[in-house]
Amino acid sequence: MDLTEIEWNKLGAYLKETQILGSIQNTLYWDQNTGMPKNGATWRSEQLTYLAKILHKRNTSIEFQSLLEAANIELLSLEISSENTQIIHSKKRNIELLLKEFNRNRNLDPKLVELLATAKSKGYESWQEAKMKSDFNIFLPYFKELIKLRIEEAKQISDQYSPWETLAQPFEPDLTLKWLNKIFKPLRETLPALTREIGKSKKYSWDLTPKSQHNLCSKLLDEFGRDKNLVVVANSPHPFSITLGPKDFRITTRIVDGEPFSSFLATAHEWGHSIYEQGLPSQTHQWFAWPLGQATSMGVHESQSLFWENRIVKSKSFSKRFFENFVAEGCVLKNYYELWKSINNLKAGVNRVEADELTYGLHILIRTELEIDLIEGSLEAKDIPSEWNKRYEELLGVRPSNDSEGCLQDVHWSEGAFGYFPSYLLGHLISAQITTQMEKDIGLLENLIEKGEYEKIIFWLKNNIHKYGRSLNSMELVRKVTSEELSSEHFINHLISKINDFC
Amino acid sequence: MDLTEIEWNKLGAYLKETQILGSIQNTLYWDQNTGMPKNGATWRSEQLTYLAKILHKRNTSIEFQSLLEAANIELLSLEISSENTQIIHSKKRNIELLLKEFNRNRNLDPKLVELLATAKSKGYESWQEAKMKSDFNIFLPYFKELIKLRIEEAKQISDQYSPWETLAQPFEPDLTLKWLNKIFKPLRETLPALTREIGKSKKYSWDLTPKSQHNLCSKLLDEFGRDKNLVVVANSPHPFSITLGPKDFRITTRIVDGEPFSSFLATAHEWGHSIYEQGLPSQTHQWFAWPLGQATSMGVHESQSLFWENRIVKSKSFSKRFFENFVAEGCVLKNYYELWKSINNLKAGVNRVEADELTYGLHILIRTELEIDLIEGSLEAKDIPSEWNKRYEELLGVRPSNDSEGCLQDVHWSEGAFGYFPSYLLGHLISAQITTQMEKDIGLLENLIEKGEYEKIIFWLKNNIHKYGRSLNSMELVRKVTSEELSSEHFINHLISKINDFC
Repeated sequence: MDLTEIEWNKLGAYLKETQILGSIQNTLYWDQNTGMPKNGATWRSEQLTYLAKILHKRNTSIEFQSLLEAANIELLSLEISSENTQIIHSKKRNIELLLKEFNRNRNLDPKLVELLATAKSKGYESWQEAKMKSDFNIFLPYFKELIKLRIEEAKQISDQYSPWETLAQPFEPDLTLKWLNKIFKPLRETLPALTREIGKSKKYSWDLTPKSQHNLCSKLLDEFGRDKNLVVVANSPHPFSITLGPKDFRITTRIVDGEPFSSFLATAHEWGHSIYEQGLPSQTHQWFAWPLGQATSMGVHESQSLFWENRIVKSKSFSKRFFENFVAEGCVLKNYYELWKSINNLKAGVNRVEADELTYGLHILIRTELEIDLIEGSLEAKDIPSEWNKRYEELLGVRPSNDSEGCLQDVHWSEGAFGYFPSYLLGHLISAQITTQMEKDIGLLENLIEKGEYEKIIFWLKNNIHKYGRSLNSMELVRKVTSEELSSEHFINHLISKINDFC
Repeated sequence: MDLTEIEWNKLGAYLKETQILGSIQNTLYWDQNTGMPKNGATWRSEQLTYLAKILHKRNTSIEFQSLLEAANIELLSLEISSENTQIIHSKKRNIELLLKEFNRNRNLDPKLVELLATAKSKGYESWQEAKMKSDFNIFLPYFKELIKLRIEEAKQISDQYSPWETLAQPFEPDLTLKWLNKIFKPLRETLPALTREIGKSKKYSWDLTPKSQHNLCSKLLDEFGRDKNLVVVANSPHPFSITLGPKDFRITTRIVDGEPFSSFLATAHEWGHSIYEQGLPSQTHQWFAWPLGQATSMGVHESQSLFWENRIVKSKSFSKRFFENFVAEGCVLKNYYELWKSINNLKAGVNRVEADELTYGLHILIRTELEIDLIEGSLEAKDIPSEWNKRYEELLGVRPSNDSEGCLQDVHWSEGAFGYFPSYLLGHLISAQITTQMEKDIGLLENLIEKGEYEKIIFWLKNNIHKYGRSLNSMELVRKVTSEELSSEHFINHLISKINDFC
């Protein structure tokens, strides 16, 4: 036994148990969305509440605190030599991140944690019903409760951040409203005009059978090199990607009537998330029980999913490569160019998940502004449907015909996840900015895709993005990889070039 | 608050937490068998080991003991009135069952528990290899260790029962060897002769596509009245039924090449298990965290699955009713009678799982006698292969061509599960005996099935079998429902009538 690591290993064992419980929670969540019968919901929520309670206990316990402190002292007492600088540096980062999270958790009233868990599960349940019946009022009381509890949560954490910023920290560490506004401002100014420019694109009206869509999704994953012993796919009402163990990755997709690309693009998107998780460091102090073995932010996570969805699958080369597969499944489009036009389909619509690269940002700007107003401003929950529709008309020129396709379309708020949405748009920006760098390093994407060199792309992503885990936050990571601060410039350039190509 | 229930409710809360953890364990097990990618196995086993550890701790803790004792004292101090006799009686039964189990767990040396866990997992591992290579000697040393440890376990529990009886108690509470021998004796005397009578039946060689088999399984469950909000179906390597919550039931099936009825019969079988669990009492002191809300024995459980598999699906009326569905899926059989002959297919073989109603009992008699001889008699583990083959020839007139299709075919012994096998055969006897009673009460099964009156059948089962949970053990239950002691008479009569019909 290495005597310089006694406390460190004790802390590691503790984190491992926490990770076991966390991954059990993930497994229950996965099952809830892919397999559970409807009536199982009540008991499942009891299970999840119970796990949340013991996880909160573990994450805020005196025992954990002592282990953290002891490991920290042990670490500080180590003599730094040329060989161990790197390791000590990243161990310190681990401790720093753990302490930050510990303090965040410790400030929370356990009673509130329990109330939140229940509210989340009730929120989700009522949202499902509300969405089905397209009636926001069914969800409203649970939504109000969620907002109230999460504001209370933000106050208890009492960071240096504002309430909404506080709620956004777990998704995008170190984010501030000021920084976000600066980054998003050019988008707010540019996207509506660009959206008007595309006008009404031709919408090909056709569909593929569910079976054909499944076949195409399967072929897509094969093309990308999925290992079936590692990655499993299922259907769920809302596509997601989740990691259940160091070698257990799951992704979901869904079939949407009349949207033949929906499941296909969702698969590419979730694959991007999954391949990021698969590429995270997994050795010793960086394995998945330690912070360094985890994803650094949702923005970076989204950059990876959006990269595969938009930069790979929506490229011309990809349409060229995959056109025959679509034909084999009964696709009525005449050539790869029609496929490319159809899969890109730049067009303002009411649905975020189905949105194209261009209008997607507007969906996010609306949600981000609405939730900041809900948490920090004067917007009341009951006014969400009307405000939602109003802003859609203003920014996108479209109006949802009911709550189900409007403000109830996303799952996030049903579980009280505020501060999450901006990550999607940050993801677009990060994806665009790192793609510019990737092309400098390994050549044009269109060429790589044409030759099916996905391994080369994955290798670059792994070595430039994935392998850092949480050792760098998203801003640092972008700076390190691209030698620039994150901005909307690359993304806007990409959009303009796509529109020129498209129209 | 009812002051007479303070301690009772505390115990209830404790049991609920235990049940939450147990049902989480079940969810992980379900996922492991229906969804998990292969490489997820190592981490899943860490999760399961962790849960097993905390469950064992909960079930043997001083806290649990104190809660049990306090609830017991509170209960004994209650004045019995005409209104509460029934409730007090069943509460007492709850405590009695809990104490029995607690003492059983508490008597075990933790060291032995650990050794057993290792021996089971090594046993399972070596059995897999032994089966694959068809070489019993690979498994032998681990098997010997398992036998040794389980005998030691039985001694530590130091019941009033013999070692083998002790090991059988969790599956069939209150079972004794004397009773079992008496019940099984007529089978030992009758079944070999009946088996010789059927001779070589005609085997129809045909198959159905996996999709057709799935469609038929789905139609079968619809026919039985499955509520999709309550019961979910998936595929797994070995069919099973499992309850994940008070309103969350899962069943699995599997497709076997060249066996067009395999998935169909497995679905009926697992449906029977599930409908039993669905019918268990679920209110207050009988809900599923309390013993009274649980299944009373594996024999009764099997009686329910075997009832749906053999008495319903293998009946003539069912073949008549369902023949068109088989035709629609491409079945080559010419008429319902051929379907009935084919689905019954009485024929001696070397494999237990594929055995028909008649020869199934012989497979069980052989295993039961062998394991009793191993645990209590003079049979040595090394002689299992030769003894196995000898008895198969004597009783069934067939001889396995190797260990893999002979004594290594079942998983049970590989995990040291002795005392389980008789439940399968007891299930046949119980199913037959309660069917006789059911027919007296609501009419001939053939008539009920012909009219599709499954609701009536389920209603009878629920009110005569399911609703009792563990308030009666299997022998008491059978006596109560049929006004007779359990015997093999009804089963043998059923077999004779089926053979007459069949040959």
